[in-house]
Amino acid sequence: MPAQAFQDYYPDHLSYCYGCGHLNEHGLQIKSYWAGDAADSAAAGGAETICTFTPRAYHSAVPGYVYGGLIASLIDCHCTGTAAAASYRAAGRELDTEPPFRFVTASLHVNYLRPTPLGVPLEIRARVLELKGRKVVMEATLSAEGQVCARGEVVAVQMPEQLATSKSSEPT
Amino acid sequence: MPAQAFQDYYPDHLSYCYGCGHLNEHGLQIKSYWAGDAADSAAAGGAETICTFTPRAYHSAVPGYVYGGLIASLIDCHCTGTAAAASYRAAGRELDTEPPFRFVTASLHVNYLRPTPLGVPLEIRARVLELKGRKVVMEATLSAEGQVCARGEVVAVQMPEQLATSKSSEPT
Repeated sequence: MPAQAFQDYYPDHLSYCYGCGHLNEHGLQIKSYWAGDAADSAAAGGAETICTFTPRAYHSAVPGYVYGGLIASLIDCHCTGTAAAASYRAAGRELDTEPPFRFVTASLHVNYLRPTPLGVPLEIRARVLELKGRKVVMEATLSAEGQVCARGEVVAVQMPEQLATSKSSEPT
Repeated sequence: MPAQAFQDYYPDHLSYCYGCGHLNEHGLQIKSYWAGDAADSAAAGGAETICTFTPRAYHSAVPGYVYGGLIASLIDCHCTGTAAAASYRAAGRELDTEPPFRFVTASLHVNYLRPTPLGVPLEIRARVLELKGRKVVMEATLSAEGQVCARGEVVAVQMPEQLATSKSSEPT
């Protein structure tokens, strides 16, 4: 995997998201990448993105299983990151170029297929279904120990450029 | 509002949910009630449930606005609580009677209508659309300062009785 995650390129003032902001010290600080190595992925149009996250012990629903709200949160933030990365790729731009592409969630749908075990790393994968104008539609899976536990669909919409760039600083 | 929230009746071993368990000291510990006073609500078939929650400063998305994953989490847990309360009511039972009705989420869908301001109390309201067998379908709104910021739909399914009652203790 590349050393820099999608989220590491977010401008500082947009890096306080509880789910994915690397400057939110209370948050989840998820990290998303293109699956496989960067060179392979760049060549593959339908490439997947991947994020691995190990919930903390207190992220429980019933004892031994992961809280559904966390699952929704992981799918949500991994997909908004995926939307940004896919938009840079579609525009033929690098992730560190201005103005930044940043997305907000318009719609989040999660189907919980089976209980998600607590105490193991979760793998979230996303794939772009549609990228048109300012909208990106994605599907995602969340797996534990090789089994898909939840499926999601996210519609993300590009943030107004004014908000995405205001108080912008160098990517960290 | 009644002094006891729906979640206060959950058995202890099911009170560690990050969203709604009153024994999860790291969690959100949301509290859900029938809207209006208990007597009025019991008489009204389509009565709503209500939960008020004030996000912490670090529950941010972009600065000044609430993180979407938290919004999804609040809708999710308020609806599983609503499913339980509605099931007791449909069965003509009090919330403190055995065996406990407890629900897990099968499907969660949230539409984010507008940015949700951070720093004010959020009001989550839910209403049962369908209660049939072990399944409850609900719709919910999340409002801030009188404006609906998100709408959700949740399908909750009754937890297997064995899990709901195992290690059960007196409601607290």
